[in-house]
Parts: sequence; C-alpha cells; structure tokens
Amino acid sequence: MSDIAIVSAENGKFRRKSSDTSLIEIACEPCIGIFKKSPELKNQIDCVLLSTTSDIQYSATILAEYLGIKTKFCQRIDNLCNSGTNAIISGYSHIKSGLCNTVLVIGADLESTKGRRLKWDISRGQFPFPVHWAALFAKAHMRKYGTTEEQMASVTVKNRKNAMNNPAAIFSSGVSIEEVLGSKKIADPIKLLDCSCICDGASALVMTNGDNACEFTDTPVWIKGIGAHTNSASFGGLGDDLTTVKSAKLAARQAYTMAKVRPKDIDIVELHDAFTIMEIMSYEDLDLTSKGHGGKFISQRHIHINPRGGLLGSGHPLGATGVAQTAEIFNQLVRKAGIRQIRDPCKLGLVHNLAAAGTSAAVLIMGI
Amino acid sequence: MSDIAIVSAENGKFRRKSSDTSLIEIACEPCIGIFKKSPELKNQIDCVLLSTTSDIQYSATILAEYLGIKTKFCQRIDNLCNSGTNAIISGYSHIKSGLCNTVLVIGADLESTKGRRLKWDISRGQFPFPVHWAALFAKAHMRKYGTTEEQMASVTVKNRKNAMNNPAAIFSSGVSIEEVLGSKKIADPIKLLDCSCICDGASALVMTNGDNACEFTDTPVWIKGIGAHTNSASFGGLGDDLTTVKSAKLAARQAYTMAKVRPKDIDIVELHDAFTIMEIMSYEDLDLTSKGHGGKFISQRHIHINPRGGLLGSGHPLGATGVAQTAEIFNQLVRKAGIRQIRDPCKLGLVHNLAAAGTSAAVLIMGI
Repeated sequence: MSDIAIVSAENGKFRRKSSDTSLIEIACEPCIGIFKKSPELKNQIDCVLLSTTSDIQYSATILAEYLGIKTKFCQRIDNLCNSGTNAIISGYSHIKSGLCNTVLVIGADLESTKGRRLKWDISRGQFPFPVHWAALFAKAHMRKYGTTEEQMASVTVKNRKNAMNNPAAIFSSGVSIEEVLGSKKIADPIKLLDCSCICDGASALVMTNGDNACEFTDTPVWIKGIGAHTNSASFGGLGDDLTTVKSAKLAARQAYTMAKVRPKDIDIVELHDAFTIMEIMSYEDLDLTSKGHGGKFISQRHIHINPRGGLLGSGHPLGATGVAQTAEIFNQLVRKAGIRQIRDPCKLGLVHNLAAAGTSAAVLIMGI
Repeated sequence: MSDIAIVSAENGKFRRKSSDTSLIEIACEPCIGIFKKSPELKNQIDCVLLSTTSDIQYSATILAEYLGIKTKFCQRIDNLCNSGTNAIISGYSHIKSGLCNTVLVIGADLESTKGRRLKWDISRGQFPFPVHWAALFAKAHMRKYGTTEEQMASVTVKNRKNAMNNPAAIFSSGVSIEEVLGSKKIADPIKLLDCSCICDGASALVMTNGDNACEFTDTPVWIKGIGAHTNSASFGGLGDDLTTVKSAKLAARQAYTMAKVRPKDIDIVELHDAFTIMEIMSYEDLDLTSKGHGGKFISQRHIHINPRGGLLGSGHPLGATGVAQTAEIFNQLVRKAGIRQIRDPCKLGLVHNLAAAGTSAAVLIMGI
C-alpha cells in the first residue's frame, strides 16, 4: 500500500465568468473551506501547488501568502486540462521523496482561459477548437461500433441529473434526451448539450505522508495507483484509430498495475467527459467494458460514474478539473459527499483526466 | 548520498529579443545539444519538465513532441525567477518517488516575459520593478555595514570578465569599475550596470536515478542537498531587516544539512546576482562569509563564484536561469566547462536561485 494519502478535499462553486473576482480569490475559496473543517492542517502545509492555465506571475506563491501559509516552496503546475492531476502527481512525488510532508494542491481557472483554443496545433488546420476533434471521435465511434446520438445524449442526461445533487456544480437543472438531441449543432454530430462548459472555479485538497495522515484523520484516502502517458501534443499524432484514447488506455494500465487492482474492483469513477463521446470512449479505455460496447454501457453500467456530474454537469475550469474529480472521489470514499453520497460500499475510486483531445492522460486510483 | 544524478547539461545561447524565434524553438536548442552529445539518452526520457514564465498553453507537451520524446507526463513549472530550480526539484521528486526514471528539465524564457514587472505586489506601491527593491537592499547594506558602490561595481566587473569565457553569455566584453559607476543611475544607488539583463535563452539538463546514471556516464553529478523556503510573495512580507534574504538563508541551511556539508566545503557557487547587491548579500546568506562582510568578500573570496558570468554577465531569461546555473555547476564538476574550466580541485558545487526580491529561494548542493 502506498503511504501517501489525501486527508481533506473541497470543491469550490463552479460558475459563469465573474468580472470582479480574481483567479487568486477564486482559488482561496476551497482552501478556506478546508481550513474551516480542519484548522490544524494549515500550519502543517510545507508546499503549495497551484494548477492553472492562467499566466498570473508568481501565482502559487501569491496564493500561499493570501492564505497565510509559510512553505518550503510553491509551484504553478500546468499541462492544460490535466493540470490538476499533474499537480496531484507532483504532490505525491514531493512527499514520497521526503522533500515535503504536507502539500496543499489547488486547481483554479477562469472561463477566460487561453486554453479554450488549441492554436499551436497546426495539424488541426482551420479547426482549432476542441469540439472539432470530439466530432471526429464521435463519427469514428458511430461508424465502427454503431454508437448512437441517443447514447451520447444519455451521458448528458445522467451527468446533469447527478449535478443536481452537487451544490458546487454550474448546472442545477436536468435535461432530457430530447433537449440534448434538439440543442444547437456545433460540429456534426456534436450538439451544444454534448459539450462541457468552460467556467470559473477552484478545488483544493491536502495530501500528506502516512504518519501524518493517521494523525489528521481517521479516514485517510490512499493514493494507490498513478498512471500517465503522453502521446503527442497535436491531434495529428494520435494515430489512425480515433475510437480509442491511447494515452488514457496506457495510463489506466499503469495505474491498475501500480495499485494491484483490476478494473472490476473499482467502485466509483470520475472520468473526463469534456464531450459525451469522451465518456463513452473512456468506459472502454479504462477497461470498464469491452471495446465497442461503450455506447451500451451507459445504460448497463454497474459502477458509479461521475457522481458530482462530471464536466458536463459541474463545468470545466481547466486547471481545477483534475483536482475537483479527485476531491469528489475523496469525499465519496470517506462518506462525506452529502446528498449525493453513494450508498453502495465504496472502497476504491478512479480519476481519469485528459488534455487536448486525449493527447495526454493521467489516471489515479485511490482507496480507503 | 542521494541517488539522483544529473548526467548531461547544456546551456543554449542567451541573447537579445528575437522576433522570429518562438519560445519552443529556443527551448529545443540546448536539448538538441544534449542529444548530439548523448544520443542514447533520448529514448530513456520518461518525463519532460519545462520551466518558463511564458503562458503558451500545453508548452511542455509541445516541446516533447518537437523533440520526438514519448513521456509518461510533461509539466510546465513556474515560480518566477526560481522556476528553474523548482523544475529541478520536481525532477528529483518524480525520480525519487519511483514514478519516473529519467527526466529532461528545460528552462526557457523570452525577453518579453510578463515577469519583468511585479504588478501584483501592492506593497511596492508605485515601484513595481525589481530595481526598486534592489535599491532598498543596497541602501540598507551600505548604511548598516559600510558596503560601497565600488564594491558593488566590482561584482559586475568580475562577472562580466567571467562571461567573456562563456560563449553562451549575452555579453562578450568586459567593463571597468569606472564604467559601472558612470553608467546611468536607475534607482539610487543602483546603476544600469548593477542590473542583470532580462533576455531570450534556454538551458537543459537530464536527471536520472542512481542505477541509470552509472550506465549513462562515468561522471554523474549527484544532487546531495536541496533547500527551499518561501517567505512571502510581496516585498512587504520581508520583515524589517533588508540586509538579509531570509528565504535564502533558511534554504541554504536546509541544503547544507541534507548534504551533510559545511559552507567551507563548497568549491564553486552559482548565485543569483540579479543585481550586484544580491551577490554581496548572498555571500552572507550562504554563510560563505560572516554577516556584514559581503562587500569585502568580493576581493577576498577563496572560492569560485559565478564562473559562467552569473546573471550580470550571462543574462537572465527568467525560467532558464536556475537550470543554467545548475548546468554550469554540472559542467565544471565534470571538467567540461571549456575555456572557463576551473583548474582547482572542484568536487562540491552550490546553486542559489531567488525570486521576486528574495521572497522565495531555492538552494541545491551537487557533488561528484
């Protein structure tokens, strides 16, 4: 068993662009939540890692000062949409190496992020927005496996329904299959309600070593497996098969191996549903179902997927997403997820976090 | 002895702003240098860490693709002027934790960086540029310890002279005491030639675990000590004594303790001479001389300080500096520093890297 644990986690409110709240203020919100619940943690933190795509200079250190935390070091860590899990991986490494004992990881981003447009990637030609590759993935999956627009729409219906129980989610109302299918077409077959919504938001968690973890809480959540793979930075590097996110498949296998668990052992998953087709493909990439069966799995699944509402229901502040996903798994495993607490036994959770058309992926496995 | 080593390092050419070369292209230069010298390293790299203050989205992953490297993960790491040592600290942690085996760390930045102006720091009032705090430090040190403008000028003279032997440095000519003293006054007593020059540039190095290190090279350089401390983000948090950089003093003590060495054991130092007064204060903060004697130490010193020319002679591309400093210590310790190779026995080196008025500092100790 790994000896690094998460001991507290909080999701701030995800919301539409706010003109009068700065990134640093938004980043403080979930941290203040953590320190209200566990005031004793604050003086123990010796490292602050801020996951964000923002370009505010010295932002991790500024955040530490706003919070009144004295640290060894502070770092801003960024890798677009999987910045959050990358920051958690860094926290794991800094503690495991012995350089730090207790790390505060904050993910925070603004709706105005420059990460909305993948303008460096000339392999995308005139189609720099993520929705264009989502359309290619969807078309390929429909062609090869008969996946339907209704199956994709049912992902939004499920995740928006879950989000109704998540006070931190951007959306508080459900939608019907018909509403998704009837929403504005953006890039065939992707419609507006197949897309997650980039927004303002922040999440935070505290990680520490095994000795401290058992002092801080009776219910530490251990990081049991970490997997990561980078395939390319550009869509053109993804290869011929657009029905599989290779980076996620490899990252998941690494994480399962490190955690010494099988896909069927997982009770709960937070996966990167930036678009509905990504949730369907992720079922397959994570080996929760067999290849090509993702479309059917949405109605047949036996495990809990995206209980906080996923990106489709909660919103997607780029740098915050990986931290928010991990915070949700933490709160579910320690049975503090409020009205959306899963009633089934829930001991092992998985976080799946992609960036830029799945050109890179990170997977975490956490357990009590 | 720590079991993480640097096995190759290269400094790219530091230069004035180039309108037609992108950050990513500049970042590639030292990496290509490394792979020319050690082609076998390229396929071993499983993590790319890019230290930069630039806001190019997904930049570490783009750089990996440009270089043709497949990794587990890529991260952009930033903490203003000590981003470089922070990325090296992350490389150390990722290897030590067992998540990665071999990490490529690149520091790269452009003259146009937004880090030139510390505009978030309202404690600076109308004085957001770094030169203003350097003037306060200099005045305080002169008042308390009788440090002179001539002593400060002699730091530039030494470092510009050293830079003449460094083909990667921005400056290739020496200057006299009179020229420094006669240069344009920016913020009394700081003159133009007391200031380092923010510029374009990149440096890179490869770190790996002990087993690999001895396969790659006969002369690995071990990371023996790491220290880091963050005092605040704002100048107002520095406290009353403006003659000491408290963060550097604490970071140095941590690093000495971890490395189990004393200041007098150090043979060679790369320290953060963003302004001449910072070199004088750093002699004291690193315990190379006693408090107040920094001004005299410049002419009495018995160890090699800033042999590549420091920031004053080499230039200061923010995200590259900490990596460039570390690359210089590596190349000196393995006796591959070319015409500026130090002839004395040279077994133990130290890197000292500050950010934002020394509000945070990182110190590395490296040995063969």
